[in-house]
Amino acid sequence: VHRTKVRVVEGVLDANDTIAQANRADFDRAGVCVVNLMSAPGAGKTTLLERVLGGLGVRAGVLEGDVQGSLDADRLAALHVPVIQLNTDPGFGGECHLDANMVRSALGAMPLADIDLLVVENVGNLVCPAEFRIGEDARVMVSSVTEGEDKPLKYPLMFRQCDLVLVNKIDLLAHLDYDLDLFLHHLDAVHPGVPRMLVSARTGEGVGAWRDWLLERVAERARTAAPA
Amino acid sequence: VHRTKVRVVEGVLDANDTIAQANRADFDRAGVCVVNLMSAPGAGKTTLLERVLGGLGVRAGVLEGDVQGSLDADRLAALHVPVIQLNTDPGFGGECHLDANMVRSALGAMPLADIDLLVVENVGNLVCPAEFRIGEDARVMVSSVTEGEDKPLKYPLMFRQCDLVLVNKIDLLAHLDYDLDLFLHHLDAVHPGVPRMLVSARTGEGVGAWRDWLLERVAERARTAAPA
Repeated sequence: VHRTKVRVVEGVLDANDTIAQANRADFDRAGVCVVNLMSAPGAGKTTLLERVLGGLGVRAGVLEGDVQGSLDADRLAALHVPVIQLNTDPGFGGECHLDANMVRSALGAMPLADIDLLVVENVGNLVCPAEFRIGEDARVMVSSVTEGEDKPLKYPLMFRQCDLVLVNKIDLLAHLDYDLDLFLHHLDAVHPGVPRMLVSARTGEGVGAWRDWLLERVAERARTAAPA
Repeated sequence: VHRTKVRVVEGVLDANDTIAQANRADFDRAGVCVVNLMSAPGAGKTTLLERVLGGLGVRAGVLEGDVQGSLDADRLAALHVPVIQLNTDPGFGGECHLDANMVRSALGAMPLADIDLLVVENVGNLVCPAEFRIGEDARVMVSSVTEGEDKPLKYPLMFRQCDLVLVNKIDLLAHLDYDLDLFLHHLDAVHPGVPRMLVSARTGEGVGAWRDWLLERVAERARTAAPA
């Protein structure tokens, strides 16, 4: 059973890359910068988006991935940005990640020509979302300090494949037995030098840097797309 | 791609149930009570085990599921209980759950005849572990208050299929914008009346009830297995 399953999933990953390239072509045509936002459940992805999307200064849209429900999409729609909810629950218990095809199925409903930035909020999971490219420009992951210092060692693929790590909930550091230096040591062990930001979605600490990082990615994308 | 994948996974689930029954038969023969312990990454499964396994009064063993590494197994081995590490990382990025066959592959190394309780600590994930039975007597999930009140609505299968919910990290309640009543309301919406305990692995609050629950399950299993 196990070997068969791995072989099937490798086939799925090949097919996924092909569809991710088609997504990428659509994003290029529309000049949209796409960020794939990932984390464990409850790490604060939606709140970190709420903190920056209002008054961002560029036109943003959000694709919300969840097994079921539209709680996060409803929260973000209040910011008056286009939000598409993508539920991964068509079959048995629900897919634990977004793949390129799921994203593709939602793009028809997203006004790509009217936005500069598309944030795809993935399903809360530190394993499978890291395996499926969706045609994104960058991958951002959120790691909450409440999850412990060992997470880079336990979920190395996720920490290795991301372009930015947001270390969230730092307002709680005084109340935890959490060794931030040890976490950063583990992070550098699996992804040496990956950019990281200490933030608190609750207090707003550090979210200015996160906002600036997003704006810089949009600007970089516009520069790359411009004719020479 | 999506439809094909769902069909394949349904076939895998049928095969999984067959192997889960074989595991169950082995557990019955050895008179072992088996608990499948699940949660999101960093919710406190290992620390909650550390709190109760030392001096439990029954002979316990642990099967540790992780994508990679043996950090948790090393912690639990310090309690002088038999611990088997099961890494799910043989292929691409690592399986996001334990299934019956993975558990079966580890049973040869676990001295079932010498233990009364086997705790299987699953991979940190709120989606797929809920879909794969492993032959367990009971499923316990840990939900940390730092993850927010909305998790039962977003991951309903996990909350619906468990026999006990440990609401962990309650020592942090004073520092969070977390509405415990709202969480319990959501919990009852997806799994009315499921047993729940408020605990803090850090301070030890509530862990006595968790220990008693485990002992009661072991005693119940012994009563059921005894000849009439």
